[in-house]
Amino acid sequence: MRFATRDNGTADGELLLVASDGSSALPLGPRWPSLLHAITQWPELMWDAASVAEKVARGEGEPLDPASLRAPLPRTWQWLDGSAFPQHGELMQKAFHLPPMETDKPLMYQGLSHQFLSGHADVPVPTEDDCIDFEGEFAVVTDDVPMGCTASEALGHIKLVLLLNDWSLRAVAPAEMKTGFGWIQAKPACSVAPFALTPDELGDAWRDGRVCLPLRVEVNGAWFGHPNGEAMAYGFHELIAHASRTRALCAGTIVGSGTVSNTNYDMVGSTCISERRAIEMIATGEASTGFLRFGDRVRMIAQSDTVLFGAIDQQVCASSSGQTAE
Amino acid sequence: MRFATRDNGTADGELLLVASDGSSALPLGPRWPSLLHAITQWPELMWDAASVAEKVARGEGEPLDPASLRAPLPRTWQWLDGSAFPQHGELMQKAFHLPPMETDKPLMYQGLSHQFLSGHADVPVPTEDDCIDFEGEFAVVTDDVPMGCTASEALGHIKLVLLLNDWSLRAVAPAEMKTGFGWIQAKPACSVAPFALTPDELGDAWRDGRVCLPLRVEVNGAWFGHPNGEAMAYGFHELIAHASRTRALCAGTIVGSGTVSNTNYDMVGSTCISERRAIEMIATGEASTGFLRFGDRVRMIAQSDTVLFGAIDQQVCASSSGQTAE
Repeated sequence: MRFATRDNGTADGELLLVASDGSSALPLGPRWPSLLHAITQWPELMWDAASVAEKVARGEGEPLDPASLRAPLPRTWQWLDGSAFPQHGELMQKAFHLPPMETDKPLMYQGLSHQFLSGHADVPVPTEDDCIDFEGEFAVVTDDVPMGCTASEALGHIKLVLLLNDWSLRAVAPAEMKTGFGWIQAKPACSVAPFALTPDELGDAWRDGRVCLPLRVEVNGAWFGHPNGEAMAYGFHELIAHASRTRALCAGTIVGSGTVSNTNYDMVGSTCISERRAIEMIATGEASTGFLRFGDRVRMIAQSDTVLFGAIDQQVCASSSGQTAE
Repeated sequence: MRFATRDNGTADGELLLVASDGSSALPLGPRWPSLLHAITQWPELMWDAASVAEKVARGEGEPLDPASLRAPLPRTWQWLDGSAFPQHGELMQKAFHLPPMETDKPLMYQGLSHQFLSGHADVPVPTEDDCIDFEGEFAVVTDDVPMGCTASEALGHIKLVLLLNDWSLRAVAPAEMKTGFGWIQAKPACSVAPFALTPDELGDAWRDGRVCLPLRVEVNGAWFGHPNGEAMAYGFHELIAHASRTRALCAGTIVGSGTVSNTNYDMVGSTCISERRAIEMIATGEASTGFLRFGDRVRMIAQSDTVLFGAIDQQVCASSSGQTAE
């Protein structure tokens, strides 16, 4: 099943069930006002959603206006972002002469979860001097996960899959990372593609807790990369087990893959500017690709024959320009 | 004014206005079901709360059962914890031979905010081998803070003050810190003292965005420390300005001071075991104070003639023991 959240003036928006071609949808009704509410009662939601899905499949849905959609979860209680593609880390270490990570566990930080931008909202940043970058990621939404959950148990707690842009400010990030405290200023709100999918919607592309599809990024209409989500060193279920060792995860927790990155980066490119710059630095001694400027557009989709998550397609803007994100 | 949250079976609990001696209280009524809701409409809340406060002051409150209270915000959208007492950092660096922090900005990480334990709940931890520790902190709750808020503007966004224990697992923390990503497993849910105070309740002890009171910690009934919150290198308003440079903060954001620590630690002690161990290591070459064991109790209060925040007083337990936090 495919869900979306329509702007109805409330903080959490209105939950919709969306047709497989993304062109029509129906609300789930008053019992299921929002996805943040629904994720806490998943089995009951699935029961009710089945009949709504039949109606939509019969063509009884309402035309869906993409401009009316917000992020599937416009806010949630927890955002835990992994960095599960080892190729990305290796390139950054090589380019910046960093020591290898001294850890045998997944890398993960806790980020801003009180606001997720829609895939079409302008993205406000204080200044271009912050070195504005994107990170193309897949992510999952969990129901309630008990403390001490194993990786195999965790697979069953993955209720939805997302496509997400983890906006990153590269002028700030290394200094914050050096403190060991993780990122505050370097990680403003993420953007999320409009459709949240149950894992079965991905068919064979959902394997071993991974989204085995290319994540295609375009900047101002030009190809930037399309590495495949399959190359995670840890599957999402293993990231969830890591996160839940000393805490229960609440329903609505979003767990991210980190920047999608592949070993054949010379063929498939990258999903963030910083990694492309690292590749340039390793090859030629200096980076030639610049960071984003106000007005630049970033587009992300999962490359597939079908609509899947829909598209992120938005521009960055000055936060002082008076435009608000949403 | 003094607020608390009573357990009424809902996720966010029932908002109460509490008498100055902490013995009686009244609900704010159906318009203000919870503090998480009320913090979004602060001026209107203050208007309604004034008349309820008069009733409570006239002795018309209901007797308050401390066992019925949860954390003032049992969950919220964002928890940003600073580390604003430089003495703490200096001791840790000296004891562990770490390089000084290369930053001219406040230290801050984003932590778990979907669960705050009450001050009397058992605290579940998987194993004593994680080296269980506490961190006594003051914290503030903000209303909506716009991106780019200045420190002087931020003072007006501080609506409530809290006393908080930031539970920390020291066997995990250094390895997570070395990754630069901050802490996930090392920082389970925090505990919060029962009463949330408007800053004016602190009188002269609220100065320059700081809680100028000793935070007294006892472990199994024995004094552990009582350093003063005045010694923050950055006031809470400066921490808020730091956090909001590239993000808006939503109403209900909790910002923490970090472990309270003073330069005269030989007189006033510490508010975490790790710092006391660092002092021992510097003085004698080895740490003699052990971390907590299951069944150990930790008590924290702000030392004052009045009740203020009330007390945190709770024990740690094995998460596998089947006891749940709340």
